[in-house]
Amino acid sequence: MIIRSLLTDDNPFNSTKEIRQWIEQRNREVDVRVEKIPFDRLKMWHSDPDGSIRHDSGRFFSIVGIDVTTDYGTNNHWRQPIILQPEVGYLGILTKEIDGVLYCLMQAKIEPGNVNCVQISPTLQATKSNYSRIHSGKSPHYLEYFVNAKPENIILDQLQSEQGARFMRKRNRNIIIKVEEEVPVLEDFRWMTLGQIKELMHYDNIVNMDTRTVLSGLKISDYVTPLDGLKGMSGFGRDMILSSTTNHAHISTRDHLSWLTGLKAKYDLFVSFCPVNEMPGWRKTATEIVRDDGKYFKIIGVNVTISNREVASWCQPLVQPMQQGLCAFIIKKINGVYHFLVQAKLECGNFDVVELAPTVQCLTGIIPRNVDLQPEYYQYIMNARKEQIIFDTLQSEEGGRFYKEQNRNMIVEADEDFPLEVPDRYTWMSLRQIYKFLRFNNYLNIQARSLISALSYK
Amino acid sequence: MIIRSLLTDDNPFNSTKEIRQWIEQRNREVDVRVEKIPFDRLKMWHSDPDGSIRHDSGRFFSIVGIDVTTDYGTNNHWRQPIILQPEVGYLGILTKEIDGVLYCLMQAKIEPGNVNCVQISPTLQATKSNYSRIHSGKSPHYLEYFVNAKPENIILDQLQSEQGARFMRKRNRNIIIKVEEEVPVLEDFRWMTLGQIKELMHYDNIVNMDTRTVLSGLKISDYVTPLDGLKGMSGFGRDMILSSTTNHAHISTRDHLSWLTGLKAKYDLFVSFCPVNEMPGWRKTATEIVRDDGKYFKIIGVNVTISNREVASWCQPLVQPMQQGLCAFIIKKINGVYHFLVQAKLECGNFDVVELAPTVQCLTGIIPRNVDLQPEYYQYIMNARKEQIIFDTLQSEEGGRFYKEQNRNMIVEADEDFPLEVPDRYTWMSLRQIYKFLRFNNYLNIQARSLISALSYK
Repeated sequence: MIIRSLLTDDNPFNSTKEIRQWIEQRNREVDVRVEKIPFDRLKMWHSDPDGSIRHDSGRFFSIVGIDVTTDYGTNNHWRQPIILQPEVGYLGILTKEIDGVLYCLMQAKIEPGNVNCVQISPTLQATKSNYSRIHSGKSPHYLEYFVNAKPENIILDQLQSEQGARFMRKRNRNIIIKVEEEVPVLEDFRWMTLGQIKELMHYDNIVNMDTRTVLSGLKISDYVTPLDGLKGMSGFGRDMILSSTTNHAHISTRDHLSWLTGLKAKYDLFVSFCPVNEMPGWRKTATEIVRDDGKYFKIIGVNVTISNREVASWCQPLVQPMQQGLCAFIIKKINGVYHFLVQAKLECGNFDVVELAPTVQCLTGIIPRNVDLQPEYYQYIMNARKEQIIFDTLQSEEGGRFYKEQNRNMIVEADEDFPLEVPDRYTWMSLRQIYKFLRFNNYLNIQARSLISALSYK
Repeated sequence: MIIRSLLTDDNPFNSTKEIRQWIEQRNREVDVRVEKIPFDRLKMWHSDPDGSIRHDSGRFFSIVGIDVTTDYGTNNHWRQPIILQPEVGYLGILTKEIDGVLYCLMQAKIEPGNVNCVQISPTLQATKSNYSRIHSGKSPHYLEYFVNAKPENIILDQLQSEQGARFMRKRNRNIIIKVEEEVPVLEDFRWMTLGQIKELMHYDNIVNMDTRTVLSGLKISDYVTPLDGLKGMSGFGRDMILSSTTNHAHISTRDHLSWLTGLKAKYDLFVSFCPVNEMPGWRKTATEIVRDDGKYFKIIGVNVTISNREVASWCQPLVQPMQQGLCAFIIKKINGVYHFLVQAKLECGNFDVVELAPTVQCLTGIIPRNVDLQPEYYQYIMNARKEQIIFDTLQSEEGGRFYKEQNRNMIVEADEDFPLEVPDRYTWMSLRQIYKFLRFNNYLNIQARSLISALSYK
């Protein structure tokens, strides 16, 4: 049906321009004040004797210390703070087909850490503590549609990971449902087409991370029937959709599974909890948990006050990055089929040792000058010519946990002479294979999913 | 090619009878003495002050205590001992095609806990401590074939779990390789066809658990081409193979994934380590870690002496079960396709909260008399008529960790009027769908895989 959902900008509810204006207006109307305060002034939070920071309810999330031992990479033992949130939250998008076009009910949501205060978010974004009312607040909007969804109304329903360097084995339930009935559109919500959301991803920091992860799992070709309806499309969009359907692949899925099994068996990853007060290279002050060398990230405590129609105020810890990052896929047509150069990357909070990551995923503040010590393919991305760059935008991480964290997201098409031979931890996957791994839990990491969600088909 | 591999008993190397005689002879030749001794006499092992039992090398495996909190089932908080072995070991079968038939190089292997001392084992069965020579022994036989296998020689290569009630997130690399070159057949090894191994599974405790888990992943239909070569087969075998290839399924894989996501999101499973000395209901004596009520299992220390050509002797802890178990699948033809009634089961050591388990998986010593309190479908299995029973054998658990543990393995075909409606935690999967989940890590638990490996096609 829904090829038009990908392309259309003739949304009878809101044009893309109107959506942007709406987000801007929301931003003007709201006053978000984030004040850094000492940890001992965080209301409803306390520090344990070992230095970890916990919510008084015992649920929600905590900042704890971990001790990591691994034989991957050059740093084989370290300690660091990490976010512990062992609950599975909902990230849900409610959709509805109207006149043959799929519309997503999206929310203009404020998060304290957002670079732009207001970003386009899923219909439902709720931790288990939220929806089981640990905070004794109201039940989240639209929750009942997701809780009561029948199998035939569920388009997608996957457990997917969050940042493995910052979260301890955190996962969310990424779910898209399609309803038949009339749905009331509440004040902070708007109907948007997929094409519109993908277009908005070309602007910096407008579409939030949760929206990106949920939409990454939506295999476009499942919603484009018949495929010969592709006539109106550009060469790139058509080729990308065909690459998501063809069985032709440079490397078989069997070989990918064996490659991943080999890497998961090869690398040890031992993680145990340790006192926050006993992490070499880190110190906890009254206001921060921070590294002596100023690298990576720090933990801060904030008091948040959000004023628009009502005033809301609360305290919480946030993770503040010390440098920006880069997440980039190199893609290449092999025998006419688009393939992605995927990296198997170990991060300490990964659920299953290694996950599939973009070709390049690194912090950009600490790149060594010596090219030999730089991340694999970093120079290739940095030196890409303008016509190779398919996507290049700053995207935010989750503003409920991260303070103004943004990463440069890039997709770069390789030259024809780009070598097919790649190092051990890298492989080529067709778009169809990527979607196959996406269906099963915990294969693609969040940085890879963010980039996949940005694929547009214009 | 290899339909004959499934059926043939005309193995030019050894008939099935010769294999059985060989195992019996090996059993006569060997003297295995397992003497229970106090923990403080376990050479190379020590008890930590908290009561946990560890190998002096710091590797291999340990017996530790865990504290479990979950909202699954009726018992929501408990402590128990568990085997901690955070390394991925190899379970590998080397195969070779000779005259169009696939032969597996199998080993007659002694393990201290085996009910029959000698069982048919994979070519390679090695912990990482083994093959990285923590014990400063020799490198395991045939290891180099697996380490050096090229992608095109790897038939199957998966990470699969062990018993979630006894092992803490333990996984092994299940791998089958196919070589072209001549392979020397060492003294304890024999070439066997798949059909022979499956036939031997109909005898109690001859084919070991590691063989069963590796072979479970071998999707038979991949090795039966063309499918119209099925003419010589029985109705059951032919129907089972066709059920493993057809796309027709009572419930879609998308619905299965959503069902599993929902259950994984619904159930909390919090597991942390606790002192062995502080586990209510359990006590550690000089010789045992055992429950006050005598249920489930206990940990013992043993001195093992194996004498045949040479004498080997070592000490280790073992898990001794206090009762037998039952693992049973109910299967049913739905629209001509065999479906398995699968249960999503939470066990404390599971890698990912719930795994797909047989219809019934329980200990048989503690079944309540009150039918309402019995495990779901238990009565159906117990009352199955003879003609419904497709498979019914005692199978051993891994004799390197478990002392004389055996479980009754059953496959029962449901009557025509068996209801398709099943409780929340249960679903129907076609054989093809089961193999699909098997390809990805950690979906089917070891009890389910053991039963799948027993499927024969005669």
